[in-house]
Parts: sequence; C-alpha cells; structure tokens
Amino acid sequence: MSATHPSATINLAVIPGDGIGPEVIAEALKVLEKVVAEEGVALEQTEYKLGAQHWLETGETLPDEVLEDLRTRDAILFGAVGAAPGDTRIPSGIIEREMLLKLRFSLDHFVNLRPSRLYGTVGSPLANPGEIDFIVVREGTEGPYVGNGGTLRGGTPHEVATEVSLNTAHGVERVVRDAFRRASQRPRKHVTLVHKHNVLVFAGHLWKRTVEAVAKEFPQVTHDYLHIDAATIFMVTDPSRFDVIVTDNLFGDIITDLAAAVTGGIGLAASGNINMDRTAPSMFEPVHGSAPDIAGQQKADPTAAILSAALLLDHLGYSNAARRIETAVVADIESRTGETRKTAAIGDAIAAAL
Amino acid sequence: MSATHPSATINLAVIPGDGIGPEVIAEALKVLEKVVAEEGVALEQTEYKLGAQHWLETGETLPDEVLEDLRTRDAILFGAVGAAPGDTRIPSGIIEREMLLKLRFSLDHFVNLRPSRLYGTVGSPLANPGEIDFIVVREGTEGPYVGNGGTLRGGTPHEVATEVSLNTAHGVERVVRDAFRRASQRPRKHVTLVHKHNVLVFAGHLWKRTVEAVAKEFPQVTHDYLHIDAATIFMVTDPSRFDVIVTDNLFGDIITDLAAAVTGGIGLAASGNINMDRTAPSMFEPVHGSAPDIAGQQKADPTAAILSAALLLDHLGYSNAARRIETAVVADIESRTGETRKTAAIGDAIAAAL
Ligand SMILES: CC(C)[C@H](C(=O)O)[C@@H](O)C(=O)O
Ligand SMILES: CC(C)[C@H](C(=O)O)[C@@H](O)C(=O)O
Repeated sequence: MSATHPSATINLAVIPGDGIGPEVIAEALKVLEKVVAEEGVALEQTEYKLGAQHWLETGETLPDEVLEDLRTRDAILFGAVGAAPGDTRIPSGIIEREMLLKLRFSLDHFVNLRPSRLYGTVGSPLANPGEIDFIVVREGTEGPYVGNGGTLRGGTPHEVATEVSLNTAHGVERVVRDAFRRASQRPRKHVTLVHKHNVLVFAGHLWKRTVEAVAKEFPQVTHDYLHIDAATIFMVTDPSRFDVIVTDNLFGDIITDLAAAVTGGIGLAASGNINMDRTAPSMFEPVHGSAPDIAGQQKADPTAAILSAALLLDHLGYSNAARRIETAVVADIESRTGETRKTAAIGDAIAAAL
Repeated sequence: MSATHPSATINLAVIPGDGIGPEVIAEALKVLEKVVAEEGVALEQTEYKLGAQHWLETGETLPDEVLEDLRTRDAILFGAVGAAPGDTRIPSGIIEREMLLKLRFSLDHFVNLRPSRLYGTVGSPLANPGEIDFIVVREGTEGPYVGNGGTLRGGTPHEVATEVSLNTAHGVERVVRDAFRRASQRPRKHVTLVHKHNVLVFAGHLWKRTVEAVAKEFPQVTHDYLHIDAATIFMVTDPSRFDVIVTDNLFGDIITDLAAAVTGGIGLAASGNINMDRTAPSMFEPVHGSAPDIAGQQKADPTAAILSAALLLDHLGYSNAARRIETAVVADIESRTGETRKTAAIGDAIAAAL
C-alpha cells in the first residue's frame, strides 16, 4: 500500500450542511480518513457551518471571509443544503443560490461531473436497463443559472418576468474540451451533445459549433447530438447508448437527476464541481438534497457522499486511493440483500472493505 | 347514433407535413371522416402543403397568406414536420421555428395539452409503472420559446450567446387557470406545478404566485410543486402520483416526451395546441416527429395522430364523437398481440371498431 504522493497532505474543507448532510458526510470522512491514512497521506480538515440552519441562526449565507478562507483549501467535501419544503422562515431558494451556486460560480466550477453507473444488484425502475455506464459533463458556471433576469410590474396583471441564459465561447469550449478529453480515455470514446438548438438557436448553435470544432482535436472520439426532450426518452428506453454526455447547466441538472433515478436512485449518485484550471478548490457533493424528512434518523444512504470523496481523491491525483474506495463501494453494493442498514453501518461496511 | 350538433360542419385544415406525417394523417382522416359522418356532421377539408419538403421546393416556410387562410378554418390537423437529421440543405430548426412554432404563437395556442395514459397491454419501459393517467398542460406561447436572444461576436473566441425566457402574468395565469379547470373535472383533482424556482427566480416566482392565487378559485383542487429535476425522477419512480401537471413551454417539452416514453412511446402520444379563447383555430398533432428514417414504409403507428383527432373533436364540442374514437383506440390497443401491423392496417382496425 504505497502512497502515490509520499509526504502529501490534503487540506480539506468540509461543509456538512443541512438535513442528512452531516450524517452522510460523517461516513464519507470515515472512509476518506481510513484510505488516506493507509496511503500515507495526511488529512487536515476544517469544518464550515453553512446552510439553511446556519442562516436561521445567523442570517449568513456565504460571507466573503468564509469564501476567501475556502479558497485556501485543496478541495471541499459538501453534504447537502436546504430547508424543509414547508419551512416558510427561509426565503425560497436563497441557500441554494447564495451559498451552493455562489460557491460553484465563485470558485469557477465549470465541470460539473456526474457519473452514472448501474451496479449489478441495484434495482433500476427500468424493466430492461441494460448496462449503464456513462458520465455527464454538465457546464457549471453559465446558462440559465447565471441569475440574470428580472421582474417588471411584479404582482400586477401586467407583470413580466425574464430569465436570461448567458453562454460564452470561453465557457462552452472549456467544458466541451473536458468532455472530449474524458471520452478519449474511456473504452467507447463517444460524446453526445444534449441541447435544444432547434428552439434555443443562439445558445444551441454556439454549443453545436463548439462541439464540431473541438471534435477535430480528438479524431478518435465520435460524437452525436440529441435534443433534451429526445435525450430523456433514450434515458429510459436505451440508457446504455450513452458514454459521455456534455450539456448546459439546466439540461444537465435535469438529465443527471433522471440518470440517477434510472440507475437506482440519487442515494448512489456522486458529483464533482470541478475547476479544471485549478485556480480554486473543487467541490464534491452527492447529487441528492438535504432530505429533511429523514434527517437525523440514520436512514440516508451515504454511498453517494462516499463516491463523491472518491471523485475528490481522483481530482487531487490520488487515483489509487480513489479506485480503492470505488472498489469497496462496488463490493458493498453487490453484497446488498435488500435489508435496510443504518447510515453508519453502510459507512462501516465500506470502510472495512477498503 | 344521434349527432351532437345536427346540421354542423367542420371546416378542417389539414397539414400532413413531412416524413411519416402524411401516412399517419391519412389514418387520422380515415377515422375522423367515418365518425363525423355517423354523427351527422359534415367535414370540409383543405390541405396545406407545408414543411421541410415544401421548403426545399419553394423556399417557403409559412407565408402570411397561408396563415391568414388557416385562420378561417375551425381547426387544424397537423402531422409532423422536419427534415432528415443529416439533410444539410435545410438550415437547422428553420421549419420548426418558422412554421410549427410560428403557428403556435400566431394562433395563440396557449394551452399545449398532452395527455399521458398507460393502456393495459402496452409495454412500458418501467418495471412497475402502476396506473398512469395524467395530463400535462404545457404553456405554449411564452418562456424560452419566444426566440428572444442573440449572438455577440459570433464565431470568435469572445462570442456571447443569450436566450431570454419571457413570462407574463397574462400568459401564466390563463394556462394555470386552464390546468385547475381541467383538474376540477377529473376524479383526483390535483395540480402539480413543475418549474425550477430555486434557480429561475423571476419566472419561477411568477408561476408559484399565480398557482397560489388561482388555487383559491378552485377550493376542491389540491396542488403541489416539484422542481423539474425532481419531476423527472418521479416520472420514472412513481408516475401514478401525477394528475394534472402545469408547466412552462420548455419544461413541458421535456416532461411530455419523458411521459410519452414511460407510457409506451411517442407512437401513442397525442397533443392539442389550443387557443382556449377561440380567437383562432386550435391545432392538433401527434407528439412524435417526422421520423424520416421510416417514412413511406407504412411502419409508423398512426394512433397518436388518431387520438389527436379525438382531442380536436373534443375541442370543437363533439365530445360524443371524441369518446367513440378514444374507445375504439383503447379497444385496438388492448387487442394488440405484439405482431407488427402496417400504418393503414391500424387505421382500418380503429375505424372498424368505432
Ligand atoms: C439545489 C439546486 C440549486 C441544484 C442545481 O439545480 O444545480 C441541484 O439540483 C443540483 O443538481 O445540484
Ligand atoms: C419540434 C419542436 C420545436 C417541438 C417543441 O419543442 O415544442 C417538439 O419537440 C414538440 O414537443 O412539439
């Protein structure tokens, strides 16, 4: 068990967040701590209290000092944020936008990486799922997520509300190139662009043209195109057709939740919000939300959080440690018999299987 | 078999379009002609040559005179339009936008009605689909479909492309009220708003506030809210939870294709582009596209087109004739044994079962 980076240290920021966030992050840390120790890597942790609960206590979403402090870390492990749907004390969406999205945008997380894989024994809602093993490279810093829009004559019968999707050559090109690079390292070497260029002409054509141009740099990678509506159909009728999907922020949000559902649920879906230029720390988080209804009951599946820790190690260059976590997770998943286990029991089992 | 409107005449516009459009429309007309004759209703038909093929021959998408002529009809039966994906002679999306979307916008088709029902013997890609019977009321004249956007410094490394979603109180309120009205006439009386208001704040809050306000007019109708990403999860894990979905133009495009897929495919999915104020004719079309790869081979399923004709009759007030078509379609679907039938054979069988 030799270390890849013998005397290395990971300076980790931990944001457990709300709801089931702290529970699943505890298990991810359990596994992470064990694997890095065995790999001879030191792990320094700094925990940040952020999220809906923190907002209720302090009125803070993401203070500038906290953001600057986070910038000094190597990576961020993130649980989940968000209040209970019925909690009217918190203005809707404020935590998501002023904290989660602010982190993604401020730290330039332009690659939102979301792998989807159907493991042997995991039940898919599909009758004939086939072999599912693809990744979605979702753009993370542009599109309809930029918060550019407004309300005119709000609350009157003449109200007009706008939302502006902003897309730049810079933003599209870097994420498309990342998708092709990842595809070039996979056996099937195929990229599918998902958009809606027959309606969203301006953004759609920027994406299409960019894919055509970048494809020339990767002659070994094939590519095709699907409208988002058609892509959702294939996601339930023929998900094994996908290898690498590249898409914008909003279509990526939609298609990755659907992908998580067809591969057995968001309890298993990991994600990385990655700054591939390494000008700021990347952030790794389960795709699932804070699930306040089951919080504190040891009912949440920490697998997505644990797999997010593997993506984190991969990004930092500890690919051996990352592979060990993935292998342990796969072994645990394939040994599942359908009985319910507590959150901590799943974490224990995966840590033991390392 | 008494006629609902004894001496009535339907002045019908028919737009067969491209690909499989003419084949499926031929069957829809076969069924429509038979049922209206039996109901004592006269049917006058005017066919319009429009679509990708017509564009190739004439350079026309939808001339103003044709649009004005269409306005004089009672309703429009529409097949499908669109060139083969590889056909580079036609600028991408031009037929969809300058013809199909121009019709929806010019004729103020603000209710894009898409029912989803899983029939007994139809295979769903879901292992346990349960009972699926809901309708989607998709807004049809606003949102990201308005064509409002632009390109700055196109083709350069500094390109910026925008897409603007426009949403008005007028536009949202009328479609939300339509959804609640339809829900009030259904057994479960439940409306689900699908949006992404935690990110698309301005448009999302207009939709949310409008639903809250309109809900007060319908105390017997319950309602809830789902983000579009979560809605796609429920669409594959628990589609029977839905009764009436109301959503914007783009989310409606996505969720209805997914809904069609989980209920056995877009060969069965009908839709109406409805002007509920009746200031212009409404248009009825299968959700599927022109499928150029199977065109002219009698391979297409005309059921969606035939069910679209039933929606057309319903809209014009011939509910008895509409129910007869639906009943014949259900009988035909439930007698399917899995053998392939030609397009015309399916139309014949449904016409015979009327
Ligand atoms: C919480 C929300 C803002 C977020 C998003 O829309 O990106 C979530 O759905 C996700 O996919 O990470
Ligand atoms: C062809 C296209 C413009 C259209 C749409 O996006 O509305 C189609 O997908 C539909 O759903 O009717």
